[in-house]
Amino acid sequence: MLHCILASTSTVYGKPFLNYLLPEIDKLFKNNSEIIFIPFAQPGGISCSDYTAKVSDALAPIDIKVRGLHEFESPIDAISKANGIFVGGGNTFVLLKTIYDLGLFKPLQDALKNGVPYMGTSAGTNICGPTICTTNDMPIVYPPSFESIGIVPFQINPHFIDAEENSTHMGENRETRIAEYLYHNNTPVLGLREGSFIEIKGDSITLKGPLSAPLFRSGSKKEELPTGSDLKIIGL
Amino acid sequence: MLHCILASTSTVYGKPFLNYLLPEIDKLFKNNSEIIFIPFAQPGGISCSDYTAKVSDALAPIDIKVRGLHEFESPIDAISKANGIFVGGGNTFVLLKTIYDLGLFKPLQDALKNGVPYMGTSAGTNICGPTICTTNDMPIVYPPSFESIGIVPFQINPHFIDAEENSTHMGENRETRIAEYLYHNNTPVLGLREGSFIEIKGDSITLKGPLSAPLFRSGSKKEELPTGSDLKIIGL
Repeated sequence: MLHCILASTSTVYGKPFLNYLLPEIDKLFKNNSEIIFIPFAQPGGISCSDYTAKVSDALAPIDIKVRGLHEFESPIDAISKANGIFVGGGNTFVLLKTIYDLGLFKPLQDALKNGVPYMGTSAGTNICGPTICTTNDMPIVYPPSFESIGIVPFQINPHFIDAEENSTHMGENRETRIAEYLYHNNTPVLGLREGSFIEIKGDSITLKGPLSAPLFRSGSKKEELPTGSDLKIIGL
Repeated sequence: MLHCILASTSTVYGKPFLNYLLPEIDKLFKNNSEIIFIPFAQPGGISCSDYTAKVSDALAPIDIKVRGLHEFESPIDAISKANGIFVGGGNTFVLLKTIYDLGLFKPLQDALKNGVPYMGTSAGTNICGPTICTTNDMPIVYPPSFESIGIVPFQINPHFIDAEENSTHMGENRETRIAEYLYHNNTPVLGLREGSFIEIKGDSITLKGPLSAPLFRSGSKKEELPTGSDLKIIGL
């Protein structure tokens, strides 16, 4: 039975790293004294060891021990035996490329399908859609495919941000980017604002957190889904 | 002899599409009554015909006729015979994928090297670096490579925007993204603010427009290059 938390961000404004998610993480990993952290998205180029230490510190108050996947001689073996997995944010292209390069794609997908509790933030959430085509990240490395592990049947856009009405910047805003995605693809896109997360428990997929989430479908107007919405219907 | 204008954006705040660039476009294409427009980046999903018409209207005041590349039976042949080429902004992944799919990579590179005047805005500028790895666009399609036509020896980040000091949004800012690029790659990155452009004439590469441009190199502090700077030295 799937059991996942897919969060837009690790950090909400004004609170320490992972702090707002601690109650969820505590519930998700309640039967696990040790989880595996996948640090490969390396935000800002932080080392895998430093990133793992940062997560370890953040989870200490809820007594969860963290081991970085980079520490294992066989990452495939480690994922196959994991009791809990957390994939942190950073660069989605680097994360997905490393998952492919290390042969972790199928083991990770299998672990989730077999019910290993999984928590993703930002890039770790992106890879749970069918592709990484709606990431906001810079394509700093070339992965062998944009196909990702597809735990939810819709695309996720983490860190979703509404257009600024008075912006003088002429780069595309987020909605324009998603409209461009939908011009070339048919999969619906859920924008996850910071503070929002998706809870997956078996067959149920639910929007959680204090905010609503915009849903974009090809040929339809944007819908705002209230928190608590059943998201299973999106992919149908 | 190379002759190119590579602009950060087609549009600066408060002015009509391409308006601020008209004097440059006029000089660049002064010997051409007709140029070829490559509309494949399709910003916001605009059709190739509508995008070409929009450019045609914008260039009418300086008496330049525009033909969209999508109108030709053989785009390769059209590029080989072009007297002037303009590649407009939109989605860089779609643009580059289409260039590869239609077999236009080498013909376009050859045209530029043979001195055909070239103008790029945004995505059309991105593809003139060695790779598209510093685009801001969403990876909505998967090109066969991120390698681009490499007219300048450094990466360009168009629509460069400085970090907002009081932002409450926790997604990576532009400098963090570029730092992540430089963690995984060695090619220097030039941020082009809106209104800035690069002029290439033979061996000379010069920063133009009213603003300075930040230069990022692996292991060095950001440098601000004043307008008028010789950019040829960056790639050395």
